[in-house]
Amino acid sequence: MRLNQLRLGKPMEKKKILVLGGGFGGVFAAKALERLGRGQVEVELVNNNNYFVFQPLLPEVAASTINSADAVVPLRQLLRNVQVRQARVMGIDFAKKTVVVMQGARLTPVNLEYDELIIALGTGVDLARIPGMADHALTMKDLTDAHRLRTHVIGCLETADVTTEAVVKKQLLTFVVVGAGFSGVETVAEVHELVRSALKYYPNIKPDEIRMYLIEYAPRILPTFPADLAEYATKQMQSTGIEVLTGVGTKSATSTGVALTDGRTINTSTIVATIGNGPHPLVSTLGLDLHWARIKTDRYMRVPGKEHVWALGDAALIPLVDNPQEDPADYATQTAQFAVREGYQLAANIMAKLSGKELKPFAYTSKGSLASLGMSKAVADVYGVKLSGFVAWLLWRGFYLSFLPGFTAKFRVGLNWLLNSVMPPNIVQLRMPPPATRYIHYWKGDKVFEPGMLIDGFYTVINGRFKLTIDNPDTGEHFEKVFGPGEHFGERVLVRSELRTGLVEALEDGLLLFIAQKDFTRFAKAFPFLDNYFKDYIERTFGGADKAFAPGSTNPPELAKTP
Amino acid sequence: MRLNQLRLGKPMEKKKILVLGGGFGGVFAAKALERLGRGQVEVELVNNNNYFVFQPLLPEVAASTINSADAVVPLRQLLRNVQVRQARVMGIDFAKKTVVVMQGARLTPVNLEYDELIIALGTGVDLARIPGMADHALTMKDLTDAHRLRTHVIGCLETADVTTEAVVKKQLLTFVVVGAGFSGVETVAEVHELVRSALKYYPNIKPDEIRMYLIEYAPRILPTFPADLAEYATKQMQSTGIEVLTGVGTKSATSTGVALTDGRTINTSTIVATIGNGPHPLVSTLGLDLHWARIKTDRYMRVPGKEHVWALGDAALIPLVDNPQEDPADYATQTAQFAVREGYQLAANIMAKLSGKELKPFAYTSKGSLASLGMSKAVADVYGVKLSGFVAWLLWRGFYLSFLPGFTAKFRVGLNWLLNSVMPPNIVQLRMPPPATRYIHYWKGDKVFEPGMLIDGFYTVINGRFKLTIDNPDTGEHFEKVFGPGEHFGERVLVRSELRTGLVEALEDGLLLFIAQKDFTRFAKAFPFLDNYFKDYIERTFGGADKAFAPGSTNPPELAKTP
Repeated sequence: MRLNQLRLGKPMEKKKILVLGGGFGGVFAAKALERLGRGQVEVELVNNNNYFVFQPLLPEVAASTINSADAVVPLRQLLRNVQVRQARVMGIDFAKKTVVVMQGARLTPVNLEYDELIIALGTGVDLARIPGMADHALTMKDLTDAHRLRTHVIGCLETADVTTEAVVKKQLLTFVVVGAGFSGVETVAEVHELVRSALKYYPNIKPDEIRMYLIEYAPRILPTFPADLAEYATKQMQSTGIEVLTGVGTKSATSTGVALTDGRTINTSTIVATIGNGPHPLVSTLGLDLHWARIKTDRYMRVPGKEHVWALGDAALIPLVDNPQEDPADYATQTAQFAVREGYQLAANIMAKLSGKELKPFAYTSKGSLASLGMSKAVADVYGVKLSGFVAWLLWRGFYLSFLPGFTAKFRVGLNWLLNSVMPPNIVQLRMPPPATRYIHYWKGDKVFEPGMLIDGFYTVINGRFKLTIDNPDTGEHFEKVFGPGEHFGERVLVRSELRTGLVEALEDGLLLFIAQKDFTRFAKAFPFLDNYFKDYIERTFGGADKAFAPGSTNPPELAKTP
Repeated sequence: MRLNQLRLGKPMEKKKILVLGGGFGGVFAAKALERLGRGQVEVELVNNNNYFVFQPLLPEVAASTINSADAVVPLRQLLRNVQVRQARVMGIDFAKKTVVVMQGARLTPVNLEYDELIIALGTGVDLARIPGMADHALTMKDLTDAHRLRTHVIGCLETADVTTEAVVKKQLLTFVVVGAGFSGVETVAEVHELVRSALKYYPNIKPDEIRMYLIEYAPRILPTFPADLAEYATKQMQSTGIEVLTGVGTKSATSTGVALTDGRTINTSTIVATIGNGPHPLVSTLGLDLHWARIKTDRYMRVPGKEHVWALGDAALIPLVDNPQEDPADYATQTAQFAVREGYQLAANIMAKLSGKELKPFAYTSKGSLASLGMSKAVADVYGVKLSGFVAWLLWRGFYLSFLPGFTAKFRVGLNWLLNSVMPPNIVQLRMPPPATRYIHYWKGDKVFEPGMLIDGFYTVINGRFKLTIDNPDTGEHFEKVFGPGEHFGERVLVRSELRTGLVEALEDGLLLFIAQKDFTRFAKAFPFLDNYFKDYIERTFGGADKAFAPGSTNPPELAKTP
């Protein structure tokens, strides 16, 4: 800070402008302030990641049409005269004009003061309405999501290629995308392309074994598009083998499938949810006036009742007219196109305010919409002109390329597009470690595990009833136990790590908390109180059964041969 | 499988050759078998990842001189006529000629039969000799390691740029690489280059605040190189500001530093260990005759006493002479160069065996060694010719480029090298979630946490004694408690998630198990037995203190302001 002040002089007069969030809104507001406010203001931008994510390209990252690193731009390279702080925003004190952030590996809290505050935190995902969705669906909000989806899809192909269980294979080769807005349509299209192009490397998977679903609750896909373009998009996707289900929603999700509102169930290992936009977790705690999960602002993007506080981008509900009705058309839409213009206008308004000039209301009319359909096809509605097919697709790419901030990013993405049209698909699976604890939802009759599977963790019943059955083929002995809420199974992971000897099934719809073997064992062993509890429990519960059913040498165990 | 057999005919005569491991040895053996054995053998390769890692380029990935995806090649694209199986090898039954692997997300066990088995599992890392090293050092064995190191280094810069604590900043800007073989030298050089080139984007970090150490127990670095080249390399690295410490080892490591055998302590947040080659975890359980942690073979790469079993690459100890002595020179060295030649020879020997021909002993003399020193400099000793500087560096790149299997990989890496010489450094930090449970070592006097830090998890004492002190500035109240093995602190994370009110210090060297808030809370809440225990415990232990010291509104808490 001191350095800047010396360099730029007049430190006392400088106003501190704090930007929360590094998406389109926050970044373009900060860029504009760099330009308009040079020497008069000091700008700091706080973001959880040290990079800006080019949201529209996430589906391409998921399909590895472009590299992860190329859909993002380091904020520090984008904003050379802005103090960039990688930190998590914890709270705002509007009275004291301070923001608390946690930074660093040790999460040290720091207080940041501001003269003017810009809230550009975007939205969050809220899938709570649909049981199991939050725990089993992949989302497409940030780079990690895209990376995770890609890793997951390739993992499905790897296993499907070598599994001998027909049911498992079918489930692995079925992919479901929920929600048919831009994100949903482009995601299903890109994933489909990835799978199709990868198949030639998976000799045991036939193309007709792939199932790809796009599920939309509304009567048609791409609601913001003209009906005929949406129609074209539907036909185009169907022609490539994507099943488009409209007018149907999702009722519940588990690790083995998704249940639809029309009573159907689709067995799948892959659910991508592009629905459920909710407020950003922090935004919902600020006591601000929210509508449609967005912060209400006036036409100048000021937050009413909070002097010195502004909001823009997806996080804000910015009226385009003086007396907005309950009609989305009366407000700025949640697109990059709008966020960028909002950023410019907000920066201008802040500078106007500081120099006592008059603020201008935000006004902008969309130049149109574009959606990629994969297979070098797209739909476009630009300046009222409707385009579809290859031309629209070229337009789509050109538009986003021109939109990418920074030459480096433009160049790299363009290059990637070129390369990937001639190169074999990138099917490298860079795996991420699975979470140590996870909630797993089950439908009545679902199997939790079967004899022969590797003991991989410990289960606690949150709700529902689960039945363990152990049968010893040799002795004919039979052991049964039903577990309810608060009870647990799989604890024998503590005494030995071998293969499951029992079968556990859900007697009704239920929820389990799974704790991975390594973490569970570390905890139990380090915590005598717990270790003793389990020692007793295992002796009491399985003492007999355990001895009776303990498999002999399981190295290697006797298992079904592969063909 | 059936398809292949129909296509190639004579299914009954085909021998099944199973390759365990997808490194240089395994991949090049499989490639050679594809060529030599077409129609006569059926080859399957099992690897934990679905890609081949080009080990020599890992330091460049860590420095993002090249993209992660470009230092690897999908095994399925490399081996078009080999069945590739992404799975974890669990055990081998030499008598039954079967291998058990676990595959898929649900870790289903599968038995694989073989006629001939090739063990190419490489080596593992064993840092157990140095207390704390295994828990606190980053390694450089695979792609994830390289990615993790890169993410970690950039994270250090991000925090150092915004922290106001001098001690923390110094620690964040100190980087230590242990072991000065190829991997160690190239890693320290690449990390140094990444940091140097990134600095211009971190306005609050001055170049002279960076400390970079290379620590080698032997009297000099690069033991396999001629002394004068090693000398040149040392000088070259020193000239760029890397401190090279030879003849000194590491005694212990914690999250805050590394202790050296000469009594010195270096405070650092970054320790990279390129030492401690041990046997692959599975290899050490096979009951095979190991020497120097490698599987003894005869000169034909057969494993003595185990018919139909072969070994090569880093996992194998292959004699180059008939009566090898305790001299490494009598055995094949653990380099890619050797592994590739071993692969060819082993494939030829298997085909010879199957057709009753005579086997050939493995014989190869190194064509030389190359090591990159960063800054477009390298050292080379090729065909006895010694080179250093830029020429050696060009040679280094050319050599590895030619060595990369597959045109795509060559092209992409070459392109990356070109681009990165003109593009700004890629400082995007793609974070990976930290592990839910981790062991943290402390030296006497180390602080575990201080008042004001975010409550982030629960601690159990494995060994040592730790002292909690809570002081209330307002009331002057003082609370103290000492925790020993089996005892725990930080459990108040269960009743509220705010800021630490106490200070915890190590009274002696000790070890804690940390469990992240989210996972600990999920587990405790789901497990009534545990939840009740903690409720009572917290009431009993902190009932008074907790109320007395509970901070009022911590949203936002009163905290030190940033300058």
